[in-house]
Amino acid sequence: MGALHEGHVSLMRHAAAENTDVFVTIYVNPTQFGLNEDLASYPKTWEADMQVLEKLNQELATANQGRVTAVFAPTTKTMYPTLPPDSSIPGVGSFIEMRPLGQLLEGASRPVFFRGVATVCMKLFNICAPDRVYFGQKDVQQTRIIKRLIQDFHLDMSLRVIPTSRESDGLALSSRNVYLGARRRNVGIVLNQALRKAELQYKNGMRLRNDVLWPAFDHGDMTLLEQEQMEPSKRAKFEVDYISLADPDTMEEIDQIDDAKGAILSGAVKMLPVEEAQDGENLGQLDAEGRQVPVRLIDNIVLEPMR
Amino acid sequence: MGALHEGHVSLMRHAAAENTDVFVTIYVNPTQFGLNEDLASYPKTWEADMQVLEKLNQELATANQGRVTAVFAPTTKTMYPTLPPDSSIPGVGSFIEMRPLGQLLEGASRPVFFRGVATVCMKLFNICAPDRVYFGQKDVQQTRIIKRLIQDFHLDMSLRVIPTSRESDGLALSSRNVYLGARRRNVGIVLNQALRKAELQYKNGMRLRNDVLWPAFDHGDMTLLEQEQMEPSKRAKFEVDYISLADPDTMEEIDQIDDAKGAILSGAVKMLPVEEAQDGENLGQLDAEGRQVPVRLIDNIVLEPMR
Repeated sequence: MGALHEGHVSLMRHAAAENTDVFVTIYVNPTQFGLNEDLASYPKTWEADMQVLEKLNQELATANQGRVTAVFAPTTKTMYPTLPPDSSIPGVGSFIEMRPLGQLLEGASRPVFFRGVATVCMKLFNICAPDRVYFGQKDVQQTRIIKRLIQDFHLDMSLRVIPTSRESDGLALSSRNVYLGARRRNVGIVLNQALRKAELQYKNGMRLRNDVLWPAFDHGDMTLLEQEQMEPSKRAKFEVDYISLADPDTMEEIDQIDDAKGAILSGAVKMLPVEEAQDGENLGQLDAEGRQVPVRLIDNIVLEPMR
Repeated sequence: MGALHEGHVSLMRHAAAENTDVFVTIYVNPTQFGLNEDLASYPKTWEADMQVLEKLNQELATANQGRVTAVFAPTTKTMYPTLPPDSSIPGVGSFIEMRPLGQLLEGASRPVFFRGVATVCMKLFNICAPDRVYFGQKDVQQTRIIKRLIQDFHLDMSLRVIPTSRESDGLALSSRNVYLGARRRNVGIVLNQALRKAELQYKNGMRLRNDVLWPAFDHGDMTLLEQEQMEPSKRAKFEVDYISLADPDTMEEIDQIDDAKGAILSGAVKMLPVEEAQDGENLGQLDAEGRQVPVRLIDNIVLEPMR
């Protein structure tokens, strides 16, 4: 979807290491945004994106590997040739729906999201006919949707899932991070910290859902309490949307981790707009009305099988 | 779906005339049958089907054209690799849904039908990678679903629609005709007759919906009245499901025919089981309990553009 950051570049670097030609698609797909979501304000940074690709190609030119040889940036009329894109429920048009996989977790908060993702990816795959497709681990449920798309529809391509790129403190890179501003950015690490606390439980031998997850919920609660005790001009409040311990294939919640399968720890928090800005405070990129937008952050950690 | 008849052979003959290799898929797709439909009893005639193909290939061998070089008859585990096929609404699994196209006409009577068709065709297309796909005009809405599938998902193949094969009196060939028996077979021509009366109105210059359709409805009513006046041991009753005058692309009902676009006349009737069998009467193929099943007949006529 453009707004390229180091996470996207990591996908391309991995692709260039395994292929002669890397095909980059840049398309902000309207059908994966709900009617009340941030389609209009989603960052569009075409010039900067092209500079990122050129810089990457200069780097790749000195190595004995593939290059970015094409960018596919279609119009919406190309991607939705017969009916205009529709994000309503049920919505008109030709859609791929995956139940229940597309309805869980991110799909519970964003009911048209995975329908839009699966649909646009099928189109992009058919147009580009890749041997391999590269997706980031950060959107773990999306990677499972793509895996299922390839399996269920017998697509002749393989999926590579590339580790999440992170800031030095662990915050997962995201195109939406530009909206955070400094104060919310600092508090936003709460999600990754919470997941790491749960991961530690798994590494320490815990297998039951509550044993694994309680320190994550506790860290969220404690962090929110700290913020609430601060002044409105200094704090950043947030809502925990979910913290999940799920089967690595179906993404369904599990009561206990099977050592042979491992599990996916994932979560989402919504960073609320700051209540009171300080003079000269870095509030990040604002919306058309000059206000902070709520920013939904997601992250996940794979708990690898133990056998 | 197998149970091959001359209509299927016509598709293969057309394919052999335009291609070196004809790939035949035979698969009775469970997800296009509703939970109360005839999946279990749908005719499965593998040995006879293979004989049809061998006979066709002998015929094709003497002509300078393509041959049937492969038959793909997959298991359901191949076609539905991750979750078992589900025909419920909404149903679990990975599905292609087309709204409103898949909900009109046949889709109104059979809510999962086109979802199943679009889904299985996408799978078959991805597995077989055909240059051209051949579908019969008899299932006109299905041809529009496939056309839309190719357009909306950018499939690299072209669609050929082959004219409906008919008995000498005009009855459209169908695998389900074996269930009719002689009495219902004779009355079943009512649908084609009704559509032809409407077609004549178009040819005679009528363009308004009611002007075109009334003789078709009238013929249905009159035929049913005639049957109702006969004895239960001689008559065959039926229900008219719909008679439609629709836009040739969207299959939406129209109030008036645009000469530049033409229209699709289509209909469906349900032939009810005979009320009282005569001694030695040919009742067609019966169900497991030895009873006639209701048989739904469909047919259509393309009203070609006039400019």
